[in-house]
Amino acid sequence: MGYRRGTRGLDTNGDTMTQLHAIIPAGGAGTRLWPLSRANYPKFLLPLAHPTRSLLQQTVERLAPVAETITVVTGSAHAAAVHDQLTDTDVRVVCEPSGRNSMPAIGIASELIRAEFGDDAVIGSFAADHIVRDSEQLRDHIRTAIRAARAGYITTLGITPTAASTAFGYIRPGDLIDREVATVAEFVEKPDEARAQQFVESGYLWNAGMFIMTTRTLSEALADYQPDLGRRLHALAADWQDLSGDARAERWSELTAIAFDYAVAEPAARDDRVAVVATSPTIGWSDLGDFDSLCEVSGHGYETQTPIAVDSSGAKVFTGDSAPLIAVVGIDNCVVVHTDDAILVTTRDAAQKVKDVPQYVRQMGRHELC
Amino acid sequence: MGYRRGTRGLDTNGDTMTQLHAIIPAGGAGTRLWPLSRANYPKFLLPLAHPTRSLLQQTVERLAPVAETITVVTGSAHAAAVHDQLTDTDVRVVCEPSGRNSMPAIGIASELIRAEFGDDAVIGSFAADHIVRDSEQLRDHIRTAIRAARAGYITTLGITPTAASTAFGYIRPGDLIDREVATVAEFVEKPDEARAQQFVESGYLWNAGMFIMTTRTLSEALADYQPDLGRRLHALAADWQDLSGDARAERWSELTAIAFDYAVAEPAARDDRVAVVATSPTIGWSDLGDFDSLCEVSGHGYETQTPIAVDSSGAKVFTGDSAPLIAVVGIDNCVVVHTDDAILVTTRDAAQKVKDVPQYVRQMGRHELC
Repeated sequence: MGYRRGTRGLDTNGDTMTQLHAIIPAGGAGTRLWPLSRANYPKFLLPLAHPTRSLLQQTVERLAPVAETITVVTGSAHAAAVHDQLTDTDVRVVCEPSGRNSMPAIGIASELIRAEFGDDAVIGSFAADHIVRDSEQLRDHIRTAIRAARAGYITTLGITPTAASTAFGYIRPGDLIDREVATVAEFVEKPDEARAQQFVESGYLWNAGMFIMTTRTLSEALADYQPDLGRRLHALAADWQDLSGDARAERWSELTAIAFDYAVAEPAARDDRVAVVATSPTIGWSDLGDFDSLCEVSGHGYETQTPIAVDSSGAKVFTGDSAPLIAVVGIDNCVVVHTDDAILVTTRDAAQKVKDVPQYVRQMGRHELC
Repeated sequence: MGYRRGTRGLDTNGDTMTQLHAIIPAGGAGTRLWPLSRANYPKFLLPLAHPTRSLLQQTVERLAPVAETITVVTGSAHAAAVHDQLTDTDVRVVCEPSGRNSMPAIGIASELIRAEFGDDAVIGSFAADHIVRDSEQLRDHIRTAIRAARAGYITTLGITPTAASTAFGYIRPGDLIDREVATVAEFVEKPDEARAQQFVESGYLWNAGMFIMTTRTLSEALADYQPDLGRRLHALAADWQDLSGDARAERWSELTAIAFDYAVAEPAARDDRVAVVATSPTIGWSDLGDFDSLCEVSGHGYETQTPIAVDSSGAKVFTGDSAPLIAVVGIDNCVVVHTDDAILVTTRDAAQKVKDVPQYVRQMGRHELC
């Protein structure tokens, strides 16, 4: 791994292992994990699924063996914390002047990589706050995806479902391109429970937001589906190093705020330009989207005590070193989260509703706790 | 109010208002209100149902207008705290060398009062950790009970039930003695739900452990039902002031450890020597026996915040000034109790099971938290 300036172009004869330029958009409020995550300290900075390493650090470490360069795109509010966590790595941190959703974030990184490594450079975008237990399997899938990317596809890794979840968008695979790669027939929004069941039975995959393609493929797709945004990103990347902070912020604010899926992936799928690699069912992917999914995995830096549980099965506590003793009586699957300034009490079933709490906290004027 | 030495005998011509010698046994572990109450800081010392005054202080204030003297009987572990809370009053504090249940506690106080005020002095025993919202009504009932006590009855105040509770023992009233007083046909143990319903429909009353009688009546009852204990209490009271701490402790340890109800009230009821005054249905009595009953009343010194409640009706928080913000998501009737060193999460339905928690805490070796 390492961000090596001056190594231009794609070595098409070399090992694909070192030929990915990984992009990690690191943003989001993470309101579902309040009070662990806060607006100014989001989920990707937290030591989840590992006793000490943050999700961002784990993501970087997971991609490093297949990445020639790694670029983290993050907001100005989190840039200092991101730098602190990645001091020992060769990661480039690109600071977004403001949040414009994922397309501008991935787009500016892609244009900066394209300017340096050319049209055939393979980029891959990966969430900063997911986990994949079997990193080696993930990297194998990435290598497969790189082949499809070189053939011109916007290539996504589709997660083989382990449950009929309603928390994710789904991918409907189309015809096989080769043994491991299919076209994407359609991206489907988060379904209700009945449809989720149908989707799983029909071989649909979860959309985990992992996209691998050449910089050429992305710029062509933008030219077709978001031409104004594509032109602006290209021009902004060319000027990026020379712009003052204010000038960058102004140019940035003119970009269309849109998600990568809507801007590129969905229209490209309709034009048969998207491919999918189905991950192994044992890959161990999770988006750690709420306390319910946090309870599914272990090893968090917050599991410093087992609560006293009376007539309460499955009680779980997330807290820090200096936590008071915690007891749960008569509540199954209770989740108690303790920080120095806030306590959350919920159940695994209700975990999705935790996102409402920061709104109430804000209404109370306690912005420091959001 | 005031503990006036030298006022001997009973002024039978005077106002009954000043002719009660109140006894307040103040003991108990209070495990159902953990972590607010602790072994070394029991419930009667806590500011419950009042923003600043403890249950013991409220009990003293409630009885003062009808009491010529007030005697608090408490354990050596709590004597300092009791003194601290009652510095502004004329209360006598009698320190039990060890816990021997309620009969020795009430008995030693009665014998000390008898030695000073004679056989016709009317004593009344009242729990230190209950509340009565309408103090004036309570005192009216006490005045009625004093009349029955003078007629020779062990007289109890029976609480008119407001629900078919299974948390209390019941009193079955017998024949009316006069308009306001009946004999007690029977004391009945805590019933199951079906029997509780029958009891309430049949006019049974709750046994709140309030007993009013002359010192003569009590010493005669002890002579009949617990003659050895009666003799020892009489002899111990005579020597009380002159004994060293060790000698007191040794004599005290020889007393039968037994509750007043078993020692005297129940056998005396079988001999038609017990009377009951039914309290007004609006008296507002509560034993504050668990967090469920705490939720029924307001004004606690621990209600410093309303929790953020998402999809959670009736959520309630008990905490101190320096509490973190507390949020509850998806749990109806949730009760969260926060202290500096412990957090309890339960529901009103499960409140009775909280008593198991201190046992687990002890098993963990965290005795400082019990």
